[in-house]
Amino acid sequence: MSPVSAVPTDPTPPISPPISMPISMPARLLMGPGPITVDPRVLHAAATQMVGQFDPAMTAAMTEVMALYRTVFATENEQTFLVDGTSRAGIEAALVSLIEPGDDVLVVVFGRFGQLLVEIAGRCGARVHTVEVPWGEVVPVELVEEACRRVRPRLIAVVQGDTSTTMCQPLADLGELAHRYQALLYVDATASIGGNPFETDAWGIDVATAGLQKCLGGPSGSAPITLSPAAVAAIERRKRVEAGIRTADDDSAPPAGTPIASNYLDLAQIIDYWGPRRLNHHTEATTMLYAAREAARLLVAETLPAAIDRHRRHGEAMLAGVRGLGLGVFGDVAHKMTNVVAVEIPETLGSTGGDRVRAAMLTCFGIEIGTSFGPLAGRVWRIGTMGYNARQDAVLLTLAALEQVLRAEGVPVSAGGGVAAASEVYAG
Amino acid sequence: MSPVSAVPTDPTPPISPPISMPISMPARLLMGPGPITVDPRVLHAAATQMVGQFDPAMTAAMTEVMALYRTVFATENEQTFLVDGTSRAGIEAALVSLIEPGDDVLVVVFGRFGQLLVEIAGRCGARVHTVEVPWGEVVPVELVEEACRRVRPRLIAVVQGDTSTTMCQPLADLGELAHRYQALLYVDATASIGGNPFETDAWGIDVATAGLQKCLGGPSGSAPITLSPAAVAAIERRKRVEAGIRTADDDSAPPAGTPIASNYLDLAQIIDYWGPRRLNHHTEATTMLYAAREAARLLVAETLPAAIDRHRRHGEAMLAGVRGLGLGVFGDVAHKMTNVVAVEIPETLGSTGGDRVRAAMLTCFGIEIGTSFGPLAGRVWRIGTMGYNARQDAVLLTLAALEQVLRAEGVPVSAGGGVAAASEVYAG
Repeated sequence: MSPVSAVPTDPTPPISPPISMPISMPARLLMGPGPITVDPRVLHAAATQMVGQFDPAMTAAMTEVMALYRTVFATENEQTFLVDGTSRAGIEAALVSLIEPGDDVLVVVFGRFGQLLVEIAGRCGARVHTVEVPWGEVVPVELVEEACRRVRPRLIAVVQGDTSTTMCQPLADLGELAHRYQALLYVDATASIGGNPFETDAWGIDVATAGLQKCLGGPSGSAPITLSPAAVAAIERRKRVEAGIRTADDDSAPPAGTPIASNYLDLAQIIDYWGPRRLNHHTEATTMLYAAREAARLLVAETLPAAIDRHRRHGEAMLAGVRGLGLGVFGDVAHKMTNVVAVEIPETLGSTGGDRVRAAMLTCFGIEIGTSFGPLAGRVWRIGTMGYNARQDAVLLTLAALEQVLRAEGVPVSAGGGVAAASEVYAG
Repeated sequence: MSPVSAVPTDPTPPISPPISMPISMPARLLMGPGPITVDPRVLHAAATQMVGQFDPAMTAAMTEVMALYRTVFATENEQTFLVDGTSRAGIEAALVSLIEPGDDVLVVVFGRFGQLLVEIAGRCGARVHTVEVPWGEVVPVELVEEACRRVRPRLIAVVQGDTSTTMCQPLADLGELAHRYQALLYVDATASIGGNPFETDAWGIDVATAGLQKCLGGPSGSAPITLSPAAVAAIERRKRVEAGIRTADDDSAPPAGTPIASNYLDLAQIIDYWGPRRLNHHTEATTMLYAAREAARLLVAETLPAAIDRHRRHGEAMLAGVRGLGLGVFGDVAHKMTNVVAVEIPETLGSTGGDRVRAAMLTCFGIEIGTSFGPLAGRVWRIGTMGYNARQDAVLLTLAALEQVLRAEGVPVSAGGGVAAASEVYAG
């Protein structure tokens, strides 16, 4: 007999014990810039069993989702549905379907997510032009108009709320401006919608996309989108139904523009999947559709104005609270989103102190807060109050824990100052 | 006072009552070609609460998912992870990341999903060449080799199991063939993996993608993918980290190939999101990651050989059962996938009879079966036995219900012949 070896010789070792267990996640209160703790009712909906892709119950649920997101987006746009991917998939679906190679596109940039629009528009073949302001500011409409005069863009693309800086770009005048210059207006409303006023139709927005993981209180992985009739017309003229299901009718109407470069994110075909033609495209991500439906249903039941008020109230409480702890706040606070605040990391903490505080918040108190990107990495903490976590207990717990962690780090904080200042907002 | 009007004048009518209710779906037994009924344990996992995107518990779960899918794909490929979208997103991620515009790509076509690869490769800018056989057959390796000699493709793309025809393409020789001609081999294993032998490494497959909604018993919306070192090298040379998070180091290594046209489906960046760099890209679709983890965990616990045997057994029972009812089976049955059968719709039913039978199965018995695409639309029913529904009770219930529906339609069926024939398979 060969001796017993301590070294495993099996080339494919068995899966280690943790993987043999069902998923089990630690309890966390997610108070960063998103994703945030999901409303348990949304999780419950996500666990609903499947029906078939073209089951009457499924197509009815799809139609309900369209109606619900019309209310969320404040629009009467028929073409309002979900893109099956994260909010970034929604952005790319909009841009790759709208932008033809060589198009002039004007991107309004005031943070990392504006830069992302630059990036994606560039990959779509656009000639990208930007108007930019320093991080912490929003862009004056005059700058956008000046650029329109110069560039004559086919599309203006802008983020409403850029979580990297917490700024919320005023949009009310941009639709009219865009249309005066024969441009379409695209808005990424992922971080803001549901917690800040957003008016697709009243503001003349042609395409808006979102995600569930911010003020909508859902998980990442589904991207609601709405398209104005003008945007639909621009996209439909590029439509080419895919090989394998193209009919003679389709062949008789070849695309008038450059065909859309993506198949998965081809809005022309996705419109036909959600519409009466029920064109076979992807297999709908039903679990995420259930989640998206419930997130919107809860928001619509609460009403948008009430939800926005809720975000405003808890955002103000958090803002007062961090100031009550003696901390500074980054950026033009008058233009801050309701649902996130950028807190200046005290310089006394040193270059790694911001991360130490975040780690202590997570490890000792189970609370997640974020930092930011680029010039703000390690300079600010981003603290969110959104979706399911736009709640008094979540705000006060976060402030109470932050006070303890800062004190342990030697930062001078007023005892109880954060909770007291937030409570005053709630009392007022 | 104005008279009460029966016509609502509110331009934004309230949401109709059904939408004010949580989702409630009818009980269905999904015996079509997929999506299929999801294992309740997977639904339960999907309902797990969020943790943060870079929480140690989250990155640990991502690492577990990578290990689990290495077992599912039978590979040691480090780069094995999830694309956040449906199986089609996985296909496009693979093709848009591998194919540079102008590349010669050879697509092996034996059904609708081979045509989809043609479509997507074309949108990626490939010069697409095909080898095709009639629907119901698989492609002889000699034909592929002959095309390689002629075309000298950079990439060969093929579906393993094309549900449109139920055929399962033999792949064991294609990796060696591809590499002999300096091509990479891509396989779409969505419909087959977990229920049919699939050997990424042993068969020399460079990139394989899948979905959860077939033999893995999960919901649509997450696309597992695996990449060989050669495929990773081909993709990495095209890497361009996006604006907003690009560093000086990134700038010092500009892409050597054409940059990848998609941002969302850019595997070079997604690799860095799943890898040690933890590059910020999309926000992981955590709900779907939980589902993907559980689907793979259950499969790995069962073991792949046992799961494949299970699919083979229940597939044989269903095949025997439909023949026992006196129905014909479409295509080269020796090359059929284990998990789906294409049943010829009796001509006596007339042109709409196939749909009538499917509607009666769904309405009266709650059982979904499918039809097919293109030349097989209305000519066959596709009946699946896969994932959670590769079970004796599901097979026997389907056969019992089908017998009743066919009899009511006047089709001559042998009383009990379907269940008896299937039972014989189970007894043997």
